[in-house]
Amino acid sequence: MLTVHGMKASGNCYKVQLLLELLGQPFRWNEIDTLAGETRTPQFLSKNANGKVPLLELADGRCLPESNAILCYLAEGSPFLPDDRWERAQALQWMFFEQYSHEPYVAVARYICKFLPADHARRADLDRLRERGYQALDVMERHLAAQPYFAGGRFTVADIALYAYTHAAADGGFDLARYAAIGQWLQRVSAQPRFVPQGA
Amino acid sequence: MLTVHGMKASGNCYKVQLLLELLGQPFRWNEIDTLAGETRTPQFLSKNANGKVPLLELADGRCLPESNAILCYLAEGSPFLPDDRWERAQALQWMFFEQYSHEPYVAVARYICKFLPADHARRADLDRLRERGYQALDVMERHLAAQPYFAGGRFTVADIALYAYTHAAADGGFDLARYAAIGQWLQRVSAQPRFVPQGA
Repeated sequence: MLTVHGMKASGNCYKVQLLLELLGQPFRWNEIDTLAGETRTPQFLSKNANGKVPLLELADGRCLPESNAILCYLAEGSPFLPDDRWERAQALQWMFFEQYSHEPYVAVARYICKFLPADHARRADLDRLRERGYQALDVMERHLAAQPYFAGGRFTVADIALYAYTHAAADGGFDLARYAAIGQWLQRVSAQPRFVPQGA
Repeated sequence: MLTVHGMKASGNCYKVQLLLELLGQPFRWNEIDTLAGETRTPQFLSKNANGKVPLLELADGRCLPESNAILCYLAEGSPFLPDDRWERAQALQWMFFEQYSHEPYVAVARYICKFLPADHARRADLDRLRERGYQALDVMERHLAAQPYFAGGRFTVADIALYAYTHAAADGGFDLARYAAIGQWLQRVSAQPRFVPQGA
């Protein structure tokens, strides 16, 4: 049985839960409270030296960190990871875009607004985070105005990766009402068979 | 013929050059001056809406951004991308680690030190960037103390991705002398057949 070490409130962890549900694959969820330092214990660091969740643990004890690497691993051989070389490259392109140009702004703004005290010094970062986050949303909107999904014309791991924090962008103060194509794409994702919302 | 739109001084662009040289694959290099705004022109944005290099352009005009997605695409079917599902997942794990936990600190510190004026306000970020960059180097050192390469026990795209900015970390004020295993790994990478140094 697969074990997912993760925190339900984390979009990166939700990616893994969502894919496993879509695949209909049984798994055990081990809730980790990162805010309480549970990713910095010697036991956790022995499984992932980088001290982050999600972490996928196979039945034989092998461990794989990095949400988007986990998605690719789990989706192998399923319709959610393209077989075609070019389409798979496009899925990866959008997953690297997500981790470099989207998550550090959209997810971090959400983290500051949702999990830190209202008078926390990091709120000073919000203007810059929102500026860069909107740039990422603009890039997504331009793509989705012409294509229903991010790679290969169909629902893939790239959509799961980008859905995780985009659907919750309002938590970080982003106004999604200005993005018509993103709004329709969010609906297409949540209409997938076996879809589960975050927190389920 | 493949075209790489890139900037020689960029580690992300060097990754693509290095892999193509290792593969012995001919390509055309189109030097782009990002500091002069050449990634923000309408012509460039029509090829990559995210306005970044490197950008791989195929002979038929299709374009692929994101350095690590380009590495995976180009390495497909070569010894540099593992065939085995678990080993490929490990290569991806380290490539996502590189873009999320390494490049934003090690590369950005280098950028500030090497390309911005000595009195630039962003120098105030250097302490935090170095703290996080050293955390990434610590994770690499721990892995390399037990393994010669990052994935599958042999040289892969994960090593290319992590070599690009690690070999130049001193430019950002990082002291690599404290990392014996990283030092030996850097030598193993630069000893690969057809290796070319950055800037070549």
